[in-house]
Amino acid sequence: MISLGIDPGTATIGYGLVEENQEGSLHAIAYGVITTPAGMPMWERLKIIYDSITALIEKYQPDRAAVEELFFAKNVTTAITVAQGRGVILLALTNAGLPIAEYKPNNIKQSLVGYGGAQKPQMQEMVRILLNLNEIPRPDDAADGLAIAITDIHSSQYNQLME
Amino acid sequence: MISLGIDPGTATIGYGLVEENQEGSLHAIAYGVITTPAGMPMWERLKIIYDSITALIEKYQPDRAAVEELFFAKNVTTAITVAQGRGVILLALTNAGLPIAEYKPNNIKQSLVGYGGAQKPQMQEMVRILLNLNEIPRPDDAADGLAIAITDIHSSQYNQLME
Repeated sequence: MISLGIDPGTATIGYGLVEENQEGSLHAIAYGVITTPAGMPMWERLKIIYDSITALIEKYQPDRAAVEELFFAKNVTTAITVAQGRGVILLALTNAGLPIAEYKPNNIKQSLVGYGGAQKPQMQEMVRILLNLNEIPRPDDAADGLAIAITDIHSSQYNQLME
Repeated sequence: MISLGIDPGTATIGYGLVEENQEGSLHAIAYGVITTPAGMPMWERLKIIYDSITALIEKYQPDRAAVEELFFAKNVTTAITVAQGRGVILLALTNAGLPIAEYKPNNIKQSLVGYGGAQKPQMQEMVRILLNLNEIPRPDDAADGLAIAITDIHSSQYNQLME
């Protein structure tokens, strides 16, 4: 089973594709970032995001997808910009027919490190260990994408156990 | 020239299509609302919004489109939800190849009533008068869509004069 994890944004969108093999171990199929130029009109940036997510799905054929939930305590303007990007990401996943899950930042930390207050370096180190990588994946947003995909696979394992 | 004006949202999206004829007078071609059920997953609601906007464009063949800018002073959660919807609206307009304009609420009031502090009943009455309608268009979100389309035509007239 392959899960596509996405860390939403407008300037930089992190993604990670994680596969769970028959024995339950995980490995990273691909990870990286989609970037859009700051000076470009928002609608053109949204089209780049939609088309890039669609291309990733066609290339790697994931079975499921997961997107981090947005949490902004303060900056409403940033929240609006990032949420517009998140909207077209969800649309691309839906149009590809993928089952979608959403996870809060604290759930992702809980799933990887064991508690919701984990710091970023701990998270990144756990991503490295769980995926048997030699180095921490860069950039940060790509590591976040992988963390979301790992959370999604953990959650799906848990749901299968419960059934 | 036909402009499609859109008042963004997730539960209710208002739209209005306004045509400017050769003599410069305006009339409403169509107006209404797109609605999505509150209990449905967000990604399915976003798909309904995208598909409905695309269907409107195919049916009425507008030359341009305009979308109200979001302004939220307080509720970030609402802002995120509405902005996700606005993202897929912008994507639908871009994928249809339409020129897009964005207007702030105050610009729309200024364009219709002459000052940015106008109240909703004044706005709605001006929409009725400018489009030669017998009654104020209902529901409110549809009237807002028409107001945005009128603003867009005014703005395009102004830009032509300046050229």
